Amino acid sequence: MSEYPNRNVLWAETLVDELAAGGLTTACIAPGSRSTPLTVAFDAHDDVETFSHLDERSAAFFALGRGRRTGEPTALVCTSGTAAANFHPAVIEANQARVPLLALTADRPPELRDSGANQTVDQEKLYGSAVRWYRDLPEPEPTPRKLRRLRTDAARALAEATGSDAGPVHLNCPFRKPLEPTPVAGDVPADWHAGDEQAAAGRGDGPYVRRQQGRPALADAALADLASAIEAADTGLILAGPADPTTLADDDWPAAVGELAAATNFPVLADPLSGVRFGERPGDATVLGGYDGYVHALDLDLDPDIVLRFGASATSKPLRRALADTDARQVLVDPMGEWRDAEFVCSDLVVADPTGTARSLAAAVAGPGDSRFADRLADAEARYWAHVEEFLTDETPEGAVAHRVLAEAPDPATVFVSNSMAVRDADRFGEPRAADLTVLANRGASGIDGVLSTAFGAGSATDEQLVLLTGDLAYYHDMNGLLALARCGVDATIVCVNNDGGGIFHLLPIEAFDPPFTDQFVTPHGLDFAATGELYDLSFQRVPADEFGDAYRASLAMDGTQVIEVPFDADASHRARERFADSVADRL
Amino acid sequence: MSEYPNRNVLWAETLVDELAAGGLTTACIAPGSRSTPLTVAFDAHDDVETFSHLDERSAAFFALGRGRRTGEPTALVCTSGTAAANFHPAVIEANQARVPLLALTADRPPELRDSGANQTVDQEKLYGSAVRWYRDLPEPEPTPRKLRRLRTDAARALAEATGSDAGPVHLNCPFRKPLEPTPVAGDVPADWHAGDEQAAAGRGDGPYVRRQQGRPALADAALADLASAIEAADTGLILAGPADPTTLADDDWPAAVGELAAATNFPVLADPLSGVRFGERPGDATVLGGYDGYVHALDLDLDPDIVLRFGASATSKPLRRALADTDARQVLVDPMGEWRDAEFVCSDLVVADPTGTARSLAAAVAGPGDSRFADRLADAEARYWAHVEEFLTDETPEGAVAHRVLAEAPDPATVFVSNSMAVRDADRFGEPRAADLTVLANRGASGIDGVLSTAFGAGSATDEQLVLLTGDLAYYHDMNGLLALARCGVDATIVCVNNDGGGIFHLLPIEAFDPPFTDQFVTPHGLDFAATGELYDLSFQRVPADEFGDAYRASLAMDGTQVIEVPFDADASHRARERFADSVADRL
Repeated sequence: MSEYPNRNVLWAETLVDELAAGGLTTACIAPGSRSTPLTVAFDAHDDVETFSHLDERSAAFFALGRGRRTGEPTALVCTSGTAAANFHPAVIEANQARVPLLALTADRPPELRDSGANQTVDQEKLYGSAVRWYRDLPEPEPTPRKLRRLRTDAARALAEATGSDAGPVHLNCPFRKPLEPTPVAGDVPADWHAGDEQAAAGRGDGPYVRRQQGRPALADAALADLASAIEAADTGLILAGPADPTTLADDDWPAAVGELAAATNFPVLADPLSGVRFGERPGDATVLGGYDGYVHALDLDLDPDIVLRFGASATSKPLRRALADTDARQVLVDPMGEWRDAEFVCSDLVVADPTGTARSLAAAVAGPGDSRFADRLADAEARYWAHVEEFLTDETPEGAVAHRVLAEAPDPATVFVSNSMAVRDADRFGEPRAADLTVLANRGASGIDGVLSTAFGAGSATDEQLVLLTGDLAYYHDMNGLLALARCGVDATIVCVNNDGGGIFHLLPIEAFDPPFTDQFVTPHGLDFAATGELYDLSFQRVPADEFGDAYRASLAMDGTQVIEVPFDADASHRARERFADSVADRL
Repeated sequence: MSEYPNRNVLWAETLVDELAAGGLTTACIAPGSRSTPLTVAFDAHDDVETFSHLDERSAAFFALGRGRRTGEPTALVCTSGTAAANFHPAVIEANQARVPLLALTADRPPELRDSGANQTVDQEKLYGSAVRWYRDLPEPEPTPRKLRRLRTDAARALAEATGSDAGPVHLNCPFRKPLEPTPVAGDVPADWHAGDEQAAAGRGDGPYVRRQQGRPALADAALADLASAIEAADTGLILAGPADPTTLADDDWPAAVGELAAATNFPVLADPLSGVRFGERPGDATVLGGYDGYVHALDLDLDPDIVLRFGASATSKPLRRALADTDARQVLVDPMGEWRDAEFVCSDLVVADPTGTARSLAAAVAGPGDSRFADRLADAEARYWAHVEEFLTDETPEGAVAHRVLAEAPDPATVFVSNSMAVRDADRFGEPRAADLTVLANRGASGIDGVLSTAFGAGSATDEQLVLLTGDLAYYHDMNGLLALARCGVDATIVCVNNDGGGIFHLLPIEAFDPPFTDQFVTPHGLDFAATGELYDLSFQRVPADEFGDAYRASLAMDGTQVIEVPFDADASHRARERFADSVADRL
């Protein structure tokens, strides 16, 4: 007998060993029987931390959150059947937002598929086009060639999940009973590897295979071309949209944007999710963060000659519209070569690394152009934030909560914002600060599902304080995620703007059609979330908007998790938004 | 201008009108913007009841539950993006369990796909092989041909979702703004249908197209062959496994089984989900329900000459194993022609309607054979239930709860049982009764997800009382589903056997390996579910096992929903199971 009681143990330990050797540090595991070999191997490995989750959907979003914060993949383990389908929403978000994620779904062995065997479904390519790489692993067998292949697959999986084209990878893992480390005589003979020590134990000093992945970089001629276009432009903008995790994890990214801005005198439109709006301001750059609130009011109709776009589509719809109204040459920089411009106004796609491209362009352009355009926008920006301060002394709308959440978040902090209104308010009311805030959202597919779990996963990856800004629907949708706080040792300040339903629908024309507006769109639920405090043993308090500041500061000074619910009337909130927009138009 | 403010209204109203004309009565709708045309049309239609859900996963299981109870499809509506992926677990269960379901996912129009537009993901064939039929509907346009096609598609969707091969259907529905019933001049000209009244208004007296779907029936020669084999057998068994919703909805099904049993003198092994264990006993048939508890103890080693199998794979693992140990000719009757035998001991697959086949065979066989085999099993069955009664006077293990739930459920009632231990206990301790109990479970993929919602969906479809028997993990997994009780007007008696984690793992060899047994498999959560009573405004009580009977009877006599939690120690429960199995072996 070898040291392995059976082939499943050998197989799963080999896989986990290689993943750990390749840098994997964390696995989120949902309990199940078929996945036992993987669970046991992950649990036993000294270099892999495991988080146990009961709801696979929340588990997947938690793993997604870690990947989003770190740029590194987290493994996800589940049993066969619908459990795996519960990963699907997070896998889609990971695909769209380019978040590293490694889904390991246990499966029945081939002879049980399509046989009516219990908990056996077709898991082949379960996530369709949403994964970067899929493999149905072969049946575990103690042969050197299969084990070398398995070690290679582990490294490939990590490589496919990371880098410029990071995203989810799916390994479907069939196992035959016994699933436990039960000794099976002869299953793994003592001489199984026939002296092939590397198949048996790996390389010893690192992963079995290393993949050096180059990043796409522009050729000199293409770079010179682009630099000429920049030099020829009287006015230009740099748009830093939501950044991929790989870019966010790149410490050089803000500086590179700063260098490009300084070299061109182009102002930077910094999305709250760009990694540029918050943190040390990049060089002498003009960083604009309030445009979502004032671009509609700019008589100067944002009219640059050239726009250099980085990252995903901007969160701000007013900005996207304004940029669609220009005749500017618009250049999209994207390392995956995706066309991230739904207005179809871009003329150039530069398939290259964002940081490298920004830096190379900064070095290639002859020198900064006229600064008047930047100055004009910087002036509008200053007037906008002064107006925001003034407006918020008179009233405290939903946006005031977002404003304060970002303005008073600790330095450093991870701030996660929900979709729907939270991210829009963070965009409109989140004033640029020098503080090291990592602001994140699930902006790939912009769902309101899995928000809490994603935030907690992000929070679990750092020692920074975690702040979550969410609406009540997202809070409800992923209440199960609250279980991770205690189980995974995460503390958070959770700010829940509760307007009892889909407040965002007030912004849409459907508001004028009631019925079905209230029952089918706003869908008030009337839930008293105080009970979630009891259920999950959290501090829960409900405070009026004008007392939010005190509660928020108190929470930031405390250990543990505090939920601060701030109730709003959705209709009144909508009117406040209209007043704010009007007041900006009046003042600018 | 026509009566339609814009083409989306015309398109969605046409689709919903045709679905209603085809018999669709219910839609489960999750709020969203892109799906506005569908939501508005469903909400406005007089013949379609709508249920509003906030969590798409729960919505889908609720719709699944209706289909499971009725055999008829319920429509599901969601917006674009990850919302649609949240349907995936229920779609898989619907596929495996052949439950009619019609998923309508709103999508961005083609020009926004693959463009980085917000909330835009690849929804093409999102559910892969799990659906019976998929169509990406064309872009709405007010032309007669497109509208005739749409009407045809509505009928086809309903037909594909129902019948002998019932299951989920996915229509992906792209819409372009405006999504609301906002007037758009010229969008639907007054003469758009150019006199094609049927394209414009349908046939008027029913659906635009009717599909008459034949059911597969055996040819006379094949029938005679099978009848001869039955006649030649000295001993035989009829296995009624979990029934498809189409079979369950067929009032003739229990009688047909009864006729076959009477004609052959074969006893019926009646799965709790077969539609035969409960209800008026079919004729003079010997109906066995306790085999899961005693088949291991039968010295007579269940050794028939022929086994006629109907339905899905039996819930009882001891039975499946016993049937794998015989040399009997085993005949699988399945209208879809799937191979529902993971032991691969069946020799014949009969692709034909179960009710029709049972009835035809009953008529074709020459006369009942020897009754000694049936009598012997009937005797074991009687002794088993007498022993159960006796055992349960001494102790009240988890199985006692299941026993009482079924023994005292009102007549009629819908009883939904969770997977994991609940369905196993219902199998082992659910004594056959003449009462009209419709016992259901998600036995297609056997997940513990969506259990509450499926039960509530089933309950919403009838005036019968609804009883749900669940464990604590399934209760936790779908807590969001509790919102449907108030929103959808469902009352239930919810019995939660709470052993604080995955008690089922005590039955597996992994129990011997701790760690990781407790932390990764049992995963105790320590949740105090009393808070769910507050959150959802339900009566919640925690009672010791020996007081469960009183609490259960009280709940059945009350309106509203009561959650009765019965705490157990998982380890002690496992020992009680062992004692029970030993005592059965001793007594039989």
